[in-house]
Amino acid sequence: MSSNHLVIMAGGIGSRFWPMSRPENPKQFIDVLGVGKTLLQLTAERFGNDFAPENTWVVTSAAYLPKVQEQLPKVPKENILLEPCMRNTAPCISYVAWKIFARYPDATLAVTAADHFVLDVKEFQRCIREGIRFVKGTSNIVTLGMKVTRPDTGYGYIQDNALVDGEQEIRHVSAFREKPDLDTAKLYMAAGNFYWNAGIFIWDAKTVIAAIRRFEPDMAMIFDNLTGCLYTEDEQTVLNGNFPLCRKISIDYAVMERLAGHPTELDGKQAAVYVLPSDFGWSDLGTWGSLYDRIPKDDNGNAKIGPNTVMMIDSKNCMVRTSGEFNMVLQGLEDYIIADNQGILLICKKNQEQRIKEFSDSLHHCDTPDQIKREAVVAQAKKKN
Amino acid sequence: MSSNHLVIMAGGIGSRFWPMSRPENPKQFIDVLGVGKTLLQLTAERFGNDFAPENTWVVTSAAYLPKVQEQLPKVPKENILLEPCMRNTAPCISYVAWKIFARYPDATLAVTAADHFVLDVKEFQRCIREGIRFVKGTSNIVTLGMKVTRPDTGYGYIQDNALVDGEQEIRHVSAFREKPDLDTAKLYMAAGNFYWNAGIFIWDAKTVIAAIRRFEPDMAMIFDNLTGCLYTEDEQTVLNGNFPLCRKISIDYAVMERLAGHPTELDGKQAAVYVLPSDFGWSDLGTWGSLYDRIPKDDNGNAKIGPNTVMMIDSKNCMVRTSGEFNMVLQGLEDYIIADNQGILLICKKNQEQRIKEFSDSLHHCDTPDQIKREAVVAQAKKKN
Repeated sequence: MSSNHLVIMAGGIGSRFWPMSRPENPKQFIDVLGVGKTLLQLTAERFGNDFAPENTWVVTSAAYLPKVQEQLPKVPKENILLEPCMRNTAPCISYVAWKIFARYPDATLAVTAADHFVLDVKEFQRCIREGIRFVKGTSNIVTLGMKVTRPDTGYGYIQDNALVDGEQEIRHVSAFREKPDLDTAKLYMAAGNFYWNAGIFIWDAKTVIAAIRRFEPDMAMIFDNLTGCLYTEDEQTVLNGNFPLCRKISIDYAVMERLAGHPTELDGKQAAVYVLPSDFGWSDLGTWGSLYDRIPKDDNGNAKIGPNTVMMIDSKNCMVRTSGEFNMVLQGLEDYIIADNQGILLICKKNQEQRIKEFSDSLHHCDTPDQIKREAVVAQAKKKN
Repeated sequence: MSSNHLVIMAGGIGSRFWPMSRPENPKQFIDVLGVGKTLLQLTAERFGNDFAPENTWVVTSAAYLPKVQEQLPKVPKENILLEPCMRNTAPCISYVAWKIFARYPDATLAVTAADHFVLDVKEFQRCIREGIRFVKGTSNIVTLGMKVTRPDTGYGYIQDNALVDGEQEIRHVSAFREKPDLDTAKLYMAAGNFYWNAGIFIWDAKTVIAAIRRFEPDMAMIFDNLTGCLYTEDEQTVLNGNFPLCRKISIDYAVMERLAGHPTELDGKQAAVYVLPSDFGWSDLGTWGSLYDRIPKDDNGNAKIGPNTVMMIDSKNCMVRTSGEFNMVLQGLEDYIIADNQGILLICKKNQEQRIKEFSDSLHHCDTPDQIKREAVVAQAKKKN
């Protein structure tokens, strides 16, 4: 049996894809691309035969367990791990690493989110294999660095050590850079040795544990305490009691940034973070705009997904998503997102999509003034009679 | 019993108000203004106590009979006349005039459409009363001429004979003018003796019959032949067989334009068309734009009707109509109509609303390409297995 394990983090609520993505049915469980498969299914498929279903692990929350089982029926139920709450990626990856290590001490993990788009799946698989080959049995970490095709301010960047490793495919990371402003992003793009951080990490389970033990000892203790319960009936109960005590921190902050540029000994071996520059047509499908960029468009640049008829008249460069409930006639719209789902319609300019979370929060907290007004009128009328 | 009769023409399908107005539920049966009453109910109310329910007549089509009965429960069922097909207003008014005359030979009719808006109902009632007083027992016709407040190209105009009757409230009409182009409309407005033709006519039933007999003898013969069946079980059957033989013509073309400026003897008495200049805040609510003009707007000029919550962000001068199915977040929209109803969403620029009928026709004739594509894919897949 192969010692390669796939870890899919699928616990997000996809708030930037509202209203298509809703907390009760977030984007990873939706056929966002209109291809007949959900993003979670596409993710599992993309890693292909290198990862057997029994070596595939999904971390999500209890509410989504039925969806994961339905969409990935071959993955054993005990491989679906239920985070009791969202604590960002470091606790999530720690939990799954401790769990896998307990049964498969030589496991190598490929960790990914559930909402990516990849055009060239064959090249993607080659990169994953290359990364696994590179780290297996070492304490090194390989991250895939996505080719920068525009000065995007929505991604973190990975900087490689071009001077030292310029000729090798897999290069030392000299630094992780947070989401830049536009001018900085332009500099990164021009420099040529920067990559988008896709959050795809390849490392041995042993290395995850050693790194957390070194950089986040409190968190390591929580999972050490869990070890005796793993694969028992008590696991979920103990996890529910202790997981919330983990600090909320991403794996990037907790491990990658600390290790990058500062090679350190982990588990008795020299450890460093490497980047494998990748060019397989990637997008994180994090936003409507990234979806729009990735799907076919008509002659006027309009992209449509969903089962309904949409008539576009005098309209250009719009991203339209229907959900089966409404046919649409859209006239005179340029650069808009138009999306309906479960009783909500969103229309907004594409360049305002970073405000979508704010919009959805406001709507859900809104006291439906018309409703209240009408109730007041009815109450008034009843009083009179 | 008063000899004043109210005739409401309520057979239209309201295509310019799509998708709120649908052939199966057109605008006159909808609470378009969001006030808790349909346009038909508002129309009947507006004429007030001067017209008893048993003197109120509604002409519509058979499909809408249940709606009329439900919305105007006091109007006797035999007062609801069912046109077998749409033949414009001359056959419609002839039918009801022949019918009323058969039982009430001295009846005076106030004829109106079912989709008007009136702000000052008291002044409206005064005008109607004044018109009735003026025509009763004569062969004259009074039409209400709406004060021109903008050079609208969507209405026909009535020109009064300012030189002769300038001082009287009710003046001879010198001509009816068809919908003008903008330059002509500006001239009409500047001239001061032009009024919008609202299609509200006041005349004795006897005068209607005499006028049709004079100007449309073929049509008169059709209704003369019906006379023996009126108020019998055979009425509808005979009507269904003969009404479709009427030529399709408006009462304006058939009678008003021919009589205006050419006083003629009708029923042994000199007959002329008069106009009563009226200023009671009128709109025909024929279009989204006219509705927008008539309802309250927020500080950004956005008008909202319907039961749902609508969040307007960076949006101005929009007309939004919800139908209970969708809450909406609308960002970055200016001068748009946004309306959903029964599985259809329309978004279009306010200045393109004259194309709405074209949009709805296209959508209804559209072969839902996505649906067909999906069915083809499914068929293909089945073939393979």
